[in-house]
Amino acid sequence: MPRTSEPGRSVSSRLLDLLFSFEPGETELSLAELARKTGLPHPTARRLVLELTKAGALEQRANGRFAVGLRLWQLGTLAPLTESLRTMAQPYMEDLYTALHQHVQLAVLEGREAVILERLSAPRALGLVSQVGGRLPLHCSGVGKILLSHAAPELVQEVLDGELQRFNSKTVVDPDALRRELAECRRTGCALVRGELTEGADSIATRIMNSEGHVVASLSVVVRTGSVQPQAVLPSVITSGLAISRRLGWRPGIKVWQG
Amino acid sequence: MPRTSEPGRSVSSRLLDLLFSFEPGETELSLAELARKTGLPHPTARRLVLELTKAGALEQRANGRFAVGLRLWQLGTLAPLTESLRTMAQPYMEDLYTALHQHVQLAVLEGREAVILERLSAPRALGLVSQVGGRLPLHCSGVGKILLSHAAPELVQEVLDGELQRFNSKTVVDPDALRRELAECRRTGCALVRGELTEGADSIATRIMNSEGHVVASLSVVVRTGSVQPQAVLPSVITSGLAISRRLGWRPGIKVWQG
Repeated sequence: MPRTSEPGRSVSSRLLDLLFSFEPGETELSLAELARKTGLPHPTARRLVLELTKAGALEQRANGRFAVGLRLWQLGTLAPLTESLRTMAQPYMEDLYTALHQHVQLAVLEGREAVILERLSAPRALGLVSQVGGRLPLHCSGVGKILLSHAAPELVQEVLDGELQRFNSKTVVDPDALRRELAECRRTGCALVRGELTEGADSIATRIMNSEGHVVASLSVVVRTGSVQPQAVLPSVITSGLAISRRLGWRPGIKVWQG
Repeated sequence: MPRTSEPGRSVSSRLLDLLFSFEPGETELSLAELARKTGLPHPTARRLVLELTKAGALEQRANGRFAVGLRLWQLGTLAPLTESLRTMAQPYMEDLYTALHQHVQLAVLEGREAVILERLSAPRALGLVSQVGGRLPLHCSGVGKILLSHAAPELVQEVLDGELQRFNSKTVVDPDALRRELAECRRTGCALVRGELTEGADSIATRIMNSEGHVVASLSVVVRTGSVQPQAVLPSVITSGLAISRRLGWRPGIKVWQG
Protein backbone atom coordinates (compact mmCIF):
# COMPACT_ATOMS: atom_id res chain seq x y z
CA MET A 1 0.00 0.00 0.00
CA PRO A 2 1.46 3.39 -0.95
CA ARG A 3 1.34 5.87 1.89
CA THR A 4 -0.91 8.86 1.57
CA SER A 5 0.59 12.26 2.14
CA GLU A 6 -2.70 13.68 3.43
CA PRO A 7 -4.03 11.42 6.15
CA GLY A 8 -7.39 13.23 6.21
CA ARG A 9 -8.20 12.33 2.65
CA SER A 10 -8.89 8.68 1.98
CA VAL A 11 -7.82 6.85 -1.17
CA SER A 12 -11.46 6.30 -2.05
CA SER A 13 -12.26 10.00 -1.89
CA ARG A 14 -9.25 10.72 -4.14
CA LEU A 15 -10.45 8.14 -6.59
CA LEU A 16 -13.95 9.59 -6.64
CA ASP A 17 -12.53 13.10 -7.02
CA LEU A 18 -10.62 11.89 -10.08
CA LEU A 19 -13.74 10.32 -11.59
CA PHE A 20 -15.97 13.30 -10.92
CA SER A 21 -13.38 15.65 -12.47
CA PHE A 22 -15.00 14.81 -15.79
CA GLU A 23 -17.88 17.13 -16.55
CA PRO A 24 -19.97 18.21 -19.53
CA GLY A 25 -17.57 20.26 -21.64
CA GLU A 26 -14.57 18.57 -20.02
CA THR A 27 -14.93 15.05 -21.25
CA GLU A 28 -11.23 14.59 -22.02
CA LEU A 29 -8.58 15.50 -19.46
CA SER A 30 -4.81 15.11 -19.43
CA LEU A 31 -3.00 13.65 -16.45
CA ALA A 32 -1.75 17.13 -15.55
CA GLU A 33 -5.29 18.53 -15.66
CA LEU A 34 -6.57 15.67 -13.49
CA ALA A 35 -3.81 16.27 -10.96
CA ARG A 36 -4.58 19.99 -10.93
CA LYS A 37 -8.37 19.55 -10.62
CA THR A 38 -8.06 17.10 -7.74
CA GLY A 39 -5.08 18.73 -6.05
CA LEU A 40 -3.29 15.36 -6.03
CA PRO A 41 0.49 15.03 -6.43
CA HIS A 42 1.26 14.03 -10.01
CA PRO A 43 2.61 10.53 -9.19
CA THR A 44 -0.49 9.74 -7.07
CA ALA A 45 -2.84 10.97 -9.78
CA ARG A 46 -0.92 8.93 -12.34
CA ARG A 47 -1.08 5.73 -10.31
CA LEU A 48 -4.80 6.05 -9.60
CA VAL A 49 -5.68 7.06 -13.17
CA LEU A 50 -3.85 4.02 -14.51
CA GLU A 51 -5.71 1.82 -12.04
CA LEU A 52 -9.03 3.35 -13.15
CA THR A 53 -8.04 2.83 -16.78
CA LYS A 54 -7.09 -0.77 -16.18
CA ALA A 55 -10.51 -1.40 -14.65
CA GLY A 56 -12.26 0.19 -17.65
CA ALA A 57 -13.65 3.06 -15.58
CA LEU A 58 -11.54 5.46 -17.64
CA GLU A 59 -10.04 5.05 -21.08
CA GLN A 60 -6.98 6.59 -22.66
CA ARG A 61 -7.68 8.25 -25.98
CA ALA A 62 -5.44 8.17 -29.03
CA ASN A 63 -4.21 11.66 -28.09
CA GLY A 64 -3.03 10.41 -24.67
CA ARG A 65 -5.76 12.18 -22.74
CA PHE A 66 -8.22 10.36 -20.50
CA ALA A 67 -11.99 10.04 -20.73
CA VAL A 68 -14.82 8.19 -19.04
CA GLY A 69 -14.76 4.54 -20.11
CA LEU A 70 -17.55 2.58 -21.73
CA ARG A 71 -17.65 0.28 -18.72
CA LEU A 72 -18.59 3.21 -16.50
CA TRP A 73 -21.28 4.17 -18.99
CA GLN A 74 -22.65 0.64 -18.72
CA LEU A 75 -22.56 0.80 -14.94
CA GLY A 76 -24.49 4.06 -15.11
CA THR A 77 -27.28 2.42 -17.12
CA LEU A 78 -27.99 0.32 -14.00
CA ALA A 79 -29.12 3.37 -12.00
CA PRO A 80 -32.68 2.67 -10.88
CA LEU A 81 -35.43 4.62 -12.59
CA THR A 82 -33.06 6.31 -15.04
CA GLU A 83 -33.00 3.73 -17.80
CA SER A 84 -36.52 2.39 -17.25
CA LEU A 85 -38.02 5.88 -17.09
CA ARG A 86 -36.12 6.91 -20.18
CA THR A 87 -37.19 3.81 -22.13
CA MET A 88 -40.80 4.14 -21.00
CA ALA A 89 -41.04 7.85 -21.75
CA GLN A 90 -39.27 7.69 -25.10
CA PRO A 91 -42.24 6.75 -27.33
CA TYR A 92 -44.38 9.52 -25.80
CA MET A 93 -41.54 12.00 -26.21
CA GLU A 94 -41.23 10.98 -29.84
CA ASP A 95 -44.95 11.52 -30.39
CA LEU A 96 -44.73 14.95 -28.77
CA TYR A 97 -41.74 15.73 -30.95
CA THR A 98 -43.63 14.59 -34.06
CA ALA A 99 -46.56 16.82 -33.11
CA LEU A 100 -44.51 19.93 -32.29
CA HIS A 101 -41.04 19.62 -33.85
CA GLN A 102 -39.58 21.37 -30.83
CA HIS A 103 -37.03 20.26 -28.20
CA VAL A 104 -38.55 17.71 -25.82
CA GLN A 105 -36.81 17.08 -22.48
CA LEU A 106 -37.22 14.67 -19.60
CA ALA A 107 -35.56 15.53 -16.27
CA VAL A 108 -35.35 14.27 -12.71
CA LEU A 109 -34.28 15.83 -9.42
CA GLU A 110 -30.72 15.19 -8.27
CA GLY A 111 -29.50 17.09 -5.24
CA ARG A 112 -30.25 20.74 -5.87
CA GLU A 113 -30.43 20.48 -9.64
CA ALA A 114 -32.47 18.94 -12.42
CA VAL A 115 -30.69 16.29 -14.48
CA ILE A 116 -31.68 15.72 -18.11
CA LEU A 117 -32.43 12.02 -18.66
CA GLU A 118 -33.42 12.31 -22.29
CA ARG A 119 -33.76 14.92 -24.98
CA LEU A 120 -35.09 14.86 -28.52
CA SER A 121 -34.10 17.74 -30.76
CA ALA A 122 -34.56 18.78 -34.32
CA PRO A 123 -31.22 19.21 -36.10
CA ARG A 124 -32.02 22.82 -36.88
CA ALA A 125 -33.97 23.69 -33.73
CA LEU A 126 -32.94 26.37 -31.24
CA GLY A 127 -29.45 25.63 -29.90
CA LEU A 128 -29.54 24.62 -26.24
CA VAL A 129 -26.65 24.39 -23.83
CA SER A 130 -28.14 21.42 -22.03
CA GLN A 131 -27.53 17.81 -23.05
CA VAL A 132 -28.40 14.33 -21.80
CA GLY A 133 -26.74 13.94 -18.41
CA GLY A 134 -26.48 17.70 -18.11
CA ARG A 135 -27.90 19.79 -15.31
CA LEU A 136 -30.37 22.64 -15.12
CA PRO A 137 -30.98 25.01 -12.18
CA LEU A 138 -34.15 24.37 -10.19
CA HIS A 139 -35.22 27.99 -9.74
CA CYS A 140 -35.35 29.17 -13.34
CA SER A 141 -35.80 26.22 -15.74
CA GLY A 142 -39.20 24.76 -16.62
CA VAL A 143 -38.40 21.23 -15.46
CA GLY A 144 -36.60 22.70 -12.43
CA LYS A 145 -39.61 24.70 -11.22
CA ILE A 146 -41.84 21.63 -11.58
CA LEU A 147 -39.43 19.39 -9.67
CA LEU A 148 -38.76 21.98 -6.97
CA SER A 149 -42.45 22.76 -6.49
CA HIS A 150 -43.12 19.09 -5.66
CA ALA A 151 -39.98 18.52 -3.58
CA ALA A 152 -39.65 18.22 0.19
CA PRO A 153 -40.22 21.56 2.01
CA GLU A 154 -36.65 21.37 3.37
CA LEU A 155 -35.19 21.37 -0.14
CA VAL A 156 -37.42 24.28 -1.19
CA GLN A 157 -36.25 26.22 1.86
CA GLU A 158 -32.61 25.37 1.13
CA VAL A 159 -32.87 26.52 -2.48
CA LEU A 160 -34.73 29.72 -1.60
CA ASP A 161 -32.23 30.48 1.20
CA GLY A 162 -29.27 29.73 -1.08
CA GLU A 163 -27.82 31.76 -3.90
CA LEU A 164 -30.39 32.17 -6.68
CA GLN A 165 -28.25 32.75 -9.73
CA ARG A 166 -29.40 35.49 -12.08
CA PHE A 167 -28.88 34.44 -15.72
CA ASN A 168 -30.44 37.53 -17.25
CA SER A 169 -32.88 40.34 -16.48
CA LYS A 170 -35.84 37.93 -16.66
CA THR A 171 -34.57 35.42 -14.09
CA VAL A 172 -36.86 35.46 -11.03
CA VAL A 173 -34.51 35.59 -8.03
CA ASP A 174 -36.84 37.06 -5.40
CA PRO A 175 -37.59 34.25 -2.91
CA ASP A 176 -41.14 35.47 -2.24
CA ALA A 177 -41.99 35.73 -5.93
CA LEU A 178 -40.50 32.27 -6.46
CA ARG A 179 -42.51 30.83 -3.59
CA ARG A 180 -45.71 32.14 -5.18
CA GLU A 181 -44.69 30.63 -8.53
CA LEU A 182 -43.98 27.26 -6.94
CA ALA A 183 -47.41 27.25 -5.28
CA GLU A 184 -48.95 27.92 -8.68
CA CYS A 185 -46.90 25.06 -10.22
CA ARG A 186 -48.15 22.71 -7.51
CA ARG A 187 -51.74 23.81 -8.16
CA THR A 188 -51.65 23.46 -11.95
CA GLY A 189 -48.94 20.83 -12.37
CA CYS A 190 -47.38 23.01 -15.06
CA ALA A 191 -44.75 25.70 -15.46
CA LEU A 192 -44.38 28.34 -18.17
CA VAL A 193 -40.90 29.83 -18.02
CA ARG A 194 -40.09 32.66 -20.42
CA GLY A 195 -36.42 33.31 -21.10
CA GLU A 196 -35.35 33.12 -17.44
CA LEU A 197 -32.46 30.73 -18.10
CA THR A 198 -31.62 31.41 -21.76
CA GLU A 199 -32.84 34.62 -23.34
CA GLY A 200 -35.03 33.77 -26.32
CA ALA A 201 -36.01 30.30 -25.07
CA ASP A 202 -39.35 29.54 -23.43
CA SER A 203 -40.01 26.33 -21.56
CA ILE A 204 -43.37 24.63 -21.06
CA ALA A 205 -43.10 21.92 -18.40
CA THR A 206 -45.35 19.44 -16.66
CA ARG A 207 -45.02 16.82 -13.94
CA ILE A 208 -44.82 13.02 -14.21
CA MET A 209 -46.24 10.89 -11.41
CA ASN A 210 -45.72 7.28 -10.39
CA SER A 211 -48.36 4.84 -9.09
CA GLU A 212 -48.13 6.37 -5.61
CA GLY A 213 -48.66 9.90 -6.86
CA HIS A 214 -45.06 10.97 -6.31
CA VAL A 215 -43.68 13.38 -8.89
CA VAL A 216 -40.68 11.44 -10.23
CA ALA A 217 -39.80 13.51 -13.28
CA SER A 218 -40.69 16.50 -15.38
CA LEU A 219 -41.35 16.71 -19.11
CA SER A 220 -40.82 19.93 -21.02
CA VAL A 221 -40.87 21.44 -24.46
CA VAL A 222 -38.49 24.30 -25.20
CA VAL A 223 -39.40 26.76 -27.95
CA ARG A 224 -37.85 29.87 -29.42
CA THR A 225 -39.56 32.92 -27.89
CA GLY A 226 -42.17 34.27 -30.28
CA SER A 227 -42.04 31.27 -32.64
CA VAL A 228 -45.02 29.63 -31.01
CA GLN A 229 -47.48 30.57 -28.24
CA PRO A 230 -46.51 28.61 -25.11
CA GLN A 231 -50.24 28.36 -24.35
CA ALA A 232 -50.77 26.56 -27.66
CA VAL A 233 -48.13 23.96 -26.77
CA LEU A 234 -49.30 23.38 -23.22
CA PRO A 235 -52.19 20.92 -23.82
CA SER A 236 -49.99 18.47 -25.74
CA VAL A 237 -47.28 18.67 -23.06
CA ILE A 238 -49.89 17.96 -20.38
CA THR A 239 -51.41 15.00 -22.23
CA SER A 240 -47.98 13.49 -22.96
CA GLY A 241 -47.01 13.92 -19.30
CA LEU A 242 -50.21 12.21 -18.21
CA ALA A 243 -49.67 9.39 -20.71
CA ILE A 244 -46.20 8.72 -19.26
CA SER A 245 -47.65 8.92 -15.71
CA ARG A 246 -50.32 6.38 -16.61
CA ARG A 247 -47.61 4.13 -18.02
CA LEU A 248 -45.96 4.37 -14.56
CA GLY A 249 -49.21 3.28 -12.91
CA TRP A 250 -50.68 6.65 -11.98
CA ARG A 251 -54.43 7.11 -12.40
CA PRO A 252 -56.49 10.34 -12.16
CA GLY A 253 -57.92 9.25 -8.78
CA ILE A 254 -54.46 9.04 -7.19
CA LYS A 255 -53.55 12.14 -5.14
CA VAL A 256 -50.39 13.90 -6.31
CA TRP A 257 -47.89 14.33 -3.45
CA GLN A 258 -46.88 17.92 -2.91
CA GLY A 259 -43.62 17.69 -1.00
CA MET B 1 -6.05 5.94 7.01
CA PRO B 2 -7.49 2.54 7.82
CA ARG B 3 -5.03 -0.30 7.26
CA THR B 4 -5.79 -2.86 4.64
CA SER B 5 -5.80 -6.48 5.71
CA GLU B 6 -4.69 -7.63 2.25
CA PRO B 7 -1.65 -5.61 1.26
CA GLY B 8 -1.82 -6.94 -2.30
CA ARG B 9 -5.22 -5.43 -2.95
CA SER B 10 -5.36 -1.67 -3.11
CA VAL B 11 -8.19 0.44 -1.76
CA SER B 12 -8.93 1.61 -5.28
CA SER B 13 -9.31 -1.91 -6.60
CA ARG B 14 -11.67 -2.71 -3.71
CA LEU B 15 -13.71 0.36 -4.49
CA LEU B 16 -13.92 -0.55 -8.18
CA ASP B 17 -14.84 -4.13 -7.29
CA LEU B 18 -17.71 -2.78 -5.20
CA LEU B 19 -18.94 -0.56 -8.04
CA PHE B 20 -18.68 -3.26 -10.68
CA SER B 21 -20.59 -5.71 -8.46
CA PHE B 22 -23.72 -4.17 -9.91
CA GLU B 23 -24.78 -5.91 -13.10
CA PRO B 24 -27.89 -6.21 -15.28
CA GLY B 25 -30.30 -8.27 -13.19
CA GLU B 26 -28.47 -7.28 -9.99
CA THR B 27 -29.18 -3.60 -9.83
CA GLU B 28 -29.93 -3.59 -6.08
CA LEU B 29 -27.56 -5.22 -3.61
CA SER B 30 -27.52 -5.39 0.17
CA LEU B 31 -24.39 -4.67 2.16
CA ALA B 32 -24.03 -8.40 2.87
CA GLU B 33 -24.28 -9.23 -0.84
CA LEU B 34 -21.71 -6.57 -1.69
CA ALA B 35 -19.32 -7.93 0.93
CA ARG B 36 -19.84 -11.47 -0.38
CA LYS B 37 -19.42 -10.53 -4.06
CA THR B 38 -16.20 -8.60 -3.42
CA GLY B 39 -14.80 -10.87 -0.72
CA LEU B 40 -14.30 -7.84 1.52
CA PRO B 41 -14.70 -7.99 5.30
CA HIS B 42 -18.12 -6.63 6.25
CA PRO B 43 -16.80 -3.51 8.08
CA THR B 44 -14.54 -2.60 5.14
CA ALA B 45 -17.37 -3.06 2.65
CA ARG B 46 -19.65 -0.96 4.86
CA ARG B 47 -17.16 1.89 5.15
CA LEU B 48 -16.45 2.01 1.42
CA VAL B 49 -20.12 1.68 0.44
CA LEU B 50 -21.02 4.59 2.71
CA GLU B 51 -18.25 6.64 1.16
CA LEU B 52 -19.51 5.80 -2.33
CA THR B 53 -23.04 6.68 -1.25
CA LYS B 54 -21.94 10.00 0.23
CA ALA B 55 -20.29 10.87 -3.08
CA GLY B 56 -23.46 10.01 -5.02
CA ALA B 57 -21.81 7.11 -6.85
CA LEU B 58 -24.23 4.74 -5.08
CA GLU B 59 -27.60 5.45 -3.53
CA GLN B 60 -29.42 3.74 -0.70
CA ARG B 61 -32.94 2.69 -1.63
CA ALA B 62 -36.00 2.90 0.63
CA ASN B 63 -35.58 -0.83 1.35
CA GLY B 64 -32.05 -0.27 2.68
CA ARG B 65 -30.36 -1.90 -0.32
CA PHE B 66 -27.84 -0.09 -2.51
CA ALA B 67 -27.97 0.79 -6.18
CA VAL B 68 -25.98 2.76 -8.74
CA GLY B 69 -26.51 6.47 -8.12
CA LEU B 70 -27.78 9.02 -10.59
CA ARG B 71 -24.46 10.86 -10.36
CA LEU B 72 -22.68 7.82 -11.74
CA TRP B 73 -25.23 7.62 -14.53
CA GLN B 74 -24.43 11.24 -15.35
CA LEU B 75 -20.72 10.51 -15.32
CA GLY B 76 -21.34 7.64 -17.73
CA THR B 77 -23.04 9.94 -20.21
CA LEU B 78 -19.64 11.64 -20.64
CA ALA B 79 -18.08 8.54 -22.20
CA PRO B 80 -16.81 9.57 -25.64
CA LEU B 81 -18.70 8.28 -28.66
CA THR B 82 -21.42 6.67 -26.52
CA GLU B 83 -23.73 9.61 -26.08
CA SER B 84 -22.88 11.36 -29.34
CA LEU B 85 -23.23 8.15 -31.36
CA ARG B 86 -26.49 7.35 -29.62
CA THR B 87 -27.89 10.85 -30.23
CA MET B 88 -26.74 10.89 -33.84
CA ALA B 89 -28.05 7.41 -34.65
CA GLN B 90 -31.39 7.84 -32.90
CA PRO B 91 -33.34 9.56 -35.70
CA TYR B 92 -32.21 6.91 -38.21
CA MET B 93 -33.09 4.15 -35.78
CA GLU B 94 -36.53 5.69 -35.34
CA ASP B 95 -37.05 5.79 -39.11
CA LEU B 96 -36.00 2.15 -39.38
CA TYR B 97 -38.37 1.29 -36.57
CA THR B 98 -41.20 3.18 -38.29
CA ALA B 99 -40.53 1.29 -41.52
CA LEU B 100 -40.28 -2.17 -39.94
CA HIS B 101 -41.87 -2.13 -36.48
CA GLN B 102 -39.18 -4.53 -35.27
CA HIS B 103 -36.49 -4.25 -32.59
CA VAL B 104 -33.70 -1.93 -33.68
CA GLN B 105 -30.36 -2.10 -31.85
CA LEU B 106 -27.10 -0.16 -31.89
CA ALA B 107 -24.01 -1.79 -30.36
CA VAL B 108 -20.30 -1.15 -29.95
CA LEU B 109 -17.33 -3.37 -29.11
CA GLU B 110 -16.18 -3.45 -25.49
CA GLY B 111 -13.54 -5.97 -24.55
CA ARG B 112 -14.73 -9.33 -25.85
CA GLU B 113 -18.40 -8.44 -26.00
CA ALA B 114 -20.84 -6.18 -27.79
CA VAL B 115 -22.51 -3.53 -25.65
CA ILE B 116 -25.96 -2.24 -26.56
CA LEU B 117 -25.88 1.57 -26.75
CA GLU B 118 -29.50 2.02 -27.78
CA ARG B 119 -32.56 -0.06 -28.51
CA LEU B 120 -36.00 0.78 -29.85
CA SER B 121 -38.70 -1.82 -29.30
CA ALA B 122 -42.38 -2.19 -29.94
CA PRO B 123 -44.29 -2.80 -26.69
CA ARG B 124 -45.62 -6.10 -28.02
CA ALA B 125 -42.61 -7.17 -30.05
CA LEU B 126 -40.63 -10.34 -29.45
CA GLY B 127 -39.26 -10.36 -25.90
CA LEU B 128 -35.49 -9.92 -25.80
CA VAL B 129 -33.15 -10.49 -22.90
CA SER B 130 -30.85 -7.67 -23.91
CA GLN B 131 -31.28 -4.08 -22.77
CA VAL B 132 -29.47 -0.77 -23.12
CA GLY B 133 -26.10 -1.17 -21.41
CA GLY B 134 -26.44 -4.93 -21.71
CA ARG B 135 -23.95 -7.23 -23.44
CA LEU B 136 -24.15 -9.68 -26.31
CA PRO B 137 -21.62 -12.36 -27.25
CA LEU B 138 -19.46 -11.60 -30.28
CA HIS B 139 -19.56 -15.04 -31.86
CA CYS B 140 -23.31 -15.59 -32.19
CA SER B 141 -25.18 -12.27 -32.20
CA GLY B 142 -25.73 -10.19 -35.34
CA VAL B 143 -24.03 -7.07 -34.02
CA GLY B 144 -21.33 -9.25 -32.45
CA LYS B 145 -20.38 -10.95 -35.72
CA ILE B 146 -20.18 -7.56 -37.47
CA LEU B 147 -18.00 -6.04 -34.74
CA LEU B 148 -15.77 -9.11 -34.46
CA SER B 149 -15.31 -9.41 -38.21
CA HIS B 150 -13.88 -5.87 -38.33
CA ALA B 151 -11.84 -6.11 -35.13
CA ALA B 152 -8.07 -6.48 -34.74
CA PRO B 153 -6.79 -9.95 -35.80
CA GLU B 154 -5.53 -10.51 -32.23
CA LEU B 155 -9.04 -10.15 -30.82
CA VAL B 156 -10.48 -12.49 -33.45
CA GLN B 157 -7.81 -15.06 -32.57
CA GLU B 158 -8.50 -14.64 -28.85
CA VAL B 159 -12.25 -15.14 -29.30
CA LEU B 160 -11.83 -18.13 -31.62
CA ASP B 161 -9.30 -19.69 -29.23
CA GLY B 162 -11.47 -19.04 -26.21
CA GLU B 163 -14.62 -20.76 -25.09
CA LEU B 164 -17.35 -20.33 -27.71
CA GLN B 165 -20.52 -20.71 -25.67
CA ARG B 166 -23.24 -22.84 -27.23
CA PHE B 167 -26.69 -21.29 -26.56
CA ASN B 168 -28.66 -23.84 -28.60
CA SER B 169 -28.26 -26.34 -31.41
CA LYS B 170 -27.98 -23.53 -33.98
CA THR B 171 -25.06 -21.70 -32.35
CA VAL B 172 -22.01 -21.89 -34.59
CA VAL B 173 -19.13 -22.84 -32.28
CA ASP B 174 -16.71 -24.35 -34.78
CA PRO B 175 -13.76 -21.93 -35.12
CA ASP B 176 -13.22 -22.72 -38.81
CA ALA B 177 -16.87 -22.23 -39.70
CA LEU B 178 -16.87 -18.99 -37.71
CA ARG B 179 -13.75 -17.76 -39.45
CA ARG B 180 -15.44 -18.29 -42.82
CA GLU B 181 -18.54 -16.44 -41.60
CA LEU B 182 -16.43 -13.51 -40.40
CA ALA B 183 -14.69 -13.27 -43.79
CA GLU B 184 -18.13 -13.14 -45.40
CA CYS B 185 -19.25 -10.40 -42.95
CA ARG B 186 -16.16 -8.36 -43.85
CA ARG B 187 -16.87 -8.81 -47.56
CA THR B 188 -20.58 -7.88 -47.44
CA GLY B 189 -20.62 -5.63 -44.37
CA CYS B 190 -23.68 -7.54 -43.17
CA ALA B 191 -24.59 -10.49 -40.96
CA LEU B 192 -27.69 -12.67 -41.00
CA VAL B 193 -27.90 -14.67 -37.79
CA ARG B 194 -30.73 -17.16 -37.41
CA GLY B 195 -31.61 -18.22 -33.89
CA GLU B 196 -28.00 -18.78 -32.79
CA LEU B 197 -28.35 -16.77 -29.58
CA THR B 198 -32.09 -16.97 -28.88
CA GLU B 199 -34.12 -19.66 -30.56
CA GLY B 200 -36.87 -18.04 -32.62
CA ALA B 201 -35.06 -14.73 -33.07
CA ASP B 202 -33.22 -13.73 -36.24
CA SER B 203 -30.84 -10.80 -36.41
CA ILE B 204 -29.97 -8.72 -39.46
CA ALA B 205 -26.92 -6.57 -38.79
CA THR B 206 -24.75 -4.09 -40.61
CA ARG B 207 -21.64 -2.01 -39.90
CA ILE B 208 -21.32 1.70 -39.13
CA MET B 209 -18.17 3.53 -40.20
CA ASN B 210 -16.61 6.84 -39.16
CA SER B 211 -14.86 9.37 -41.40
CA GLU B 212 -11.68 7.28 -41.39
CA GLY B 213 -13.46 4.10 -42.45
CA HIS B 214 -13.18 2.46 -39.03
CA VAL B 215 -16.16 0.31 -38.04
CA VAL B 216 -17.24 1.99 -34.79
CA ALA B 217 -20.62 0.34 -34.24
CA SER B 218 -23.14 -2.13 -35.57
CA LEU B 219 -26.83 -1.61 -36.28
CA SER B 220 -29.25 -4.53 -36.23
CA VAL B 221 -32.90 -5.45 -36.54
CA VAL B 222 -34.16 -8.47 -34.62
CA VAL B 223 -37.25 -10.28 -35.90
CA ARG B 224 -39.24 -13.31 -34.83
CA THR B 225 -38.17 -16.27 -36.96
CA GLY B 226 -40.66 -16.82 -39.76
CA SER B 227 -42.51 -13.53 -39.22
CA VAL B 228 -40.54 -11.78 -41.90
CA GLN B 229 -37.89 -12.75 -44.45
CA PRO B 230 -34.51 -11.50 -43.22
CA GLN B 231 -33.62 -10.83 -46.85
CA ALA B 232 -36.57 -8.46 -47.11
CA VAL B 233 -35.37 -6.47 -44.11
CA LEU B 234 -31.73 -6.31 -45.17
CA PRO B 235 -31.84 -3.37 -47.64
CA SER B 236 -33.42 -1.00 -45.11
CA VAL B 237 -30.88 -2.03 -42.46
CA ILE B 238 -28.05 -1.38 -44.92
CA THR B 239 -29.35 2.03 -45.98
CA SER B 240 -29.93 3.11 -42.37
CA GLY B 241 -26.42 1.97 -41.45
CA LEU B 242 -24.97 3.91 -44.36
CA ALA B 243 -27.02 6.99 -43.42
CA ILE B 244 -25.56 6.90 -39.88
CA SER B 245 -22.07 6.34 -41.32
CA ARG B 246 -22.48 9.37 -43.59
CA ARG B 247 -23.59 11.40 -40.58
CA LEU B 248 -20.26 10.35 -38.99
CA GLY B 249 -18.39 11.63 -42.03
CA TRP B 250 -17.94 8.39 -43.98
CA ARG B 251 -18.34 8.56 -47.75
CA PRO B 252 -18.54 5.68 -50.27
CA GLY B 253 -14.99 6.37 -51.50
CA ILE B 254 -13.49 5.83 -48.04
CA LYS B 255 -11.98 2.36 -47.58
CA VAL B 256 -13.51 0.35 -44.73
CA TRP B 257 -10.84 -0.90 -42.30
CA GLN B 258 -10.90 -4.64 -41.86
CA GLY B 259 -9.09 -5.28 -38.60
